[in-house]
Amino acid sequence: MDAIQKNLLEQVAELHGVPEGAYNIRANGKAAARNTTASIDIVSKTDKDGIDIIIKPGTKNQSVHIPVVLSESGLTETVYNDFFIGDDCDVTIVAGCGIHNCGVQNSEHSGIHAFYVGKNARVRYVERHYGEGDGLGENIMNPTTIVEMREGSYMEMETTQIKGVDSTIRTTKAKLGPNSTLIIKEKVMTHGRQLAKSDFTVDLDGEGCHTNVISRSVARGESKQVFLARINGNAACYGHSECDAIIMDQGVVSAIPEVTANCLDAQLIHEAAIGKIAGEQLTKLMTLGLTEKEAEEQIVNGFLK
Amino acid sequence: MDAIQKNLLEQVAELHGVPEGAYNIRANGKAAARNTTASIDIVSKTDKDGIDIIIKPGTKNQSVHIPVVLSESGLTETVYNDFFIGDDCDVTIVAGCGIHNCGVQNSEHSGIHAFYVGKNARVRYVERHYGEGDGLGENIMNPTTIVEMREGSYMEMETTQIKGVDSTIRTTKAKLGPNSTLIIKEKVMTHGRQLAKSDFTVDLDGEGCHTNVISRSVARGESKQVFLARINGNAACYGHSECDAIIMDQGVVSAIPEVTANCLDAQLIHEAAIGKIAGEQLTKLMTLGLTEKEAEEQIVNGFLK
Repeated sequence: MDAIQKNLLEQVAELHGVPEGAYNIRANGKAAARNTTASIDIVSKTDKDGIDIIIKPGTKNQSVHIPVVLSESGLTETVYNDFFIGDDCDVTIVAGCGIHNCGVQNSEHSGIHAFYVGKNARVRYVERHYGEGDGLGENIMNPTTIVEMREGSYMEMETTQIKGVDSTIRTTKAKLGPNSTLIIKEKVMTHGRQLAKSDFTVDLDGEGCHTNVISRSVARGESKQVFLARINGNAACYGHSECDAIIMDQGVVSAIPEVTANCLDAQLIHEAAIGKIAGEQLTKLMTLGLTEKEAEEQIVNGFLK
Repeated sequence: MDAIQKNLLEQVAELHGVPEGAYNIRANGKAAARNTTASIDIVSKTDKDGIDIIIKPGTKNQSVHIPVVLSESGLTETVYNDFFIGDDCDVTIVAGCGIHNCGVQNSEHSGIHAFYVGKNARVRYVERHYGEGDGLGENIMNPTTIVEMREGSYMEMETTQIKGVDSTIRTTKAKLGPNSTLIIKEKVMTHGRQLAKSDFTVDLDGEGCHTNVISRSVARGESKQVFLARINGNAACYGHSECDAIIMDQGVVSAIPEVTANCLDAQLIHEAAIGKIAGEQLTKLMTLGLTEKEAEEQIVNGFLK
C-alpha cells in the first residue's frame, strides 16, 4: 500500500496501520488485506463482488473495519457487503470509501451494504466518504444501506461526507422489528458544483420500535443537496426526523421529509430548518478577534461535530 | 331558494339571508342572485363558466360573498372566478361550496380561484367546504387557488373542510412579491372512507416576503389525508410551514413538506407532528365527568378551532 492509499485509509477509517480485530481492506478493486477472528468471519462472495461478514451470536466489544480505497482514475465498481450480526452481539463496524482521482476519467464506487441485526444485538456503524485529487475526473459514490432489525435490537449509524465527493446518492432503507431502535446521524458538507442526495426510508413495523433520523448539512459554493426522509409508522411506534442545513455562497438545499402514520398508535414528528449562519453568531466570534472567514469555519465545524 | 339550499348557504357562508355588500350566489350551476356596489363589480365571464370580481383601488372594509350550492345529484361543474383586488384595498372575500347529494350519482364542484392582489392591499379570504346527503353518490370538491401578490400586500386565507366531502384535492399556488405576506390556515376533518389531499406551493420571490402555512387536521374512520407543502425561498425571505394532525380509528395521515432555499438569505422552517390524542388529556377531561367520547369531541373541537 502506497502513501496515497495510506492517507485515504486514515481519512475514511482513522487507521494509521492495520486495525485490531477483523478487517478487510479493498484497494483498487482487489482485496488488499483481510483478518478474521474466532467470532467474526469474512467470506468473499462467489456470485458477485463483495463479502459476507458473519458475526457469531454473543460477540461483544469487537470491531470490523472494511475500508475501500481507490487511487486509480477511471475505476467503476459495485460491491455487495452483507453483515449477519448474531443475537446479543455488541459490535462496531467501520466502513468507508476514499477516492484519489488525479486523472480525467470518473472514479465511481457503489457499496451496497445489508445489515441483518439479530435479537437484542447492538451495532454501531460508522461510514465515511472522502475524495481528493486534482484531476478532471469526478469522484462518485452511491452507497446503499439496507437494515433489517429483529426484536430488541439497537443500531446507530453515523455517516459522514465532508470533502471531495462530486456526486453522491445515498439510499438507506430500514425495517424495524418490535422494540428495536435505529438512530441515524448524517453529516454532509458539499462545495464547488457538488451534488448530494440522501434518501431515507424507515418502516416502523414492530410494536414499540423507534427511529431518530438526524441530518446536519452545509452547502457551500454552488453545490446542491436534497434530503428525503420517509418515515412510515405501521405500528405503535415513535419516529422523529430532523434536518438542519446551513447554506453559504450560492448553495441550495431542499428538505423533503415525509411522515405517514398508518397506525393509530404511531407518533411521528418532523422538523427542518434551512438558513445561513446567523449574523449575531458571526459578530460575536469576530469581537473575540477572529476574521469573518475564521468565524464561519468555527461555526461550520461546531455544527458538523 | 329552498330550505336545503338555505341550510347549505348557512353552512358554507354563515349566511341567513342575503349578505351585505357585493355577492354572487350560484345554485345548481346557475346564477341565483347577484349584487354589486360602487366599488365592487361582478361580471360574468363570456368564454367560460365563472365571474370576474373587480375591486377598485382603495376600497376599504367591504366584503364579497360568492357561495356555491349544489342540491341536485349528478351535477359536475368547473367554475373560474378571478379576483382583481386594486392597490390599497382592505377587503374580506367569503367563498364556499355546499353539496347536498341524495342521489346515486356523484356531485362535483371544481372552483378555480385566482387572486391578483394589488400593492399594499389587504385581503382576508375565507373558504368553507361542506357536504351532506344520504345518497350513494359522492360529494367531490377540487378547489384550486392561485395567488399573485404585489409589493407590500397581505393576504390571509382560511380554508375549512369539516364534514361530508368524500374526495378532495386542494391545490394552492402562490407567488409573493417584495415585502408581501401570505398566511394560510387550513383545517380539515375527514371521516368514513374520505380522501383529502392538500397541495401547497409557495414561491417566495420578492425580497422581504413571508409565508406561514398552518395545517390542522383530524382523520377519523378509515379516511386518508395527504398534506404537501412546497416552499421555495428565492429571495431574502422567511417561510414557515406547520402540520399538526390527529389520527383516530384507522385514519391515515401523510405529511410531505418540501422546503428549498435557492437564496442564501432565505430562512425556511418546517414542523410536522402526527399522533393520536394524548392519553393524559383524555383522562383529565374524564375526571371532570365527561365520557371518553365527549372528551375526544372536546379535544378535537378545540384543536380545529
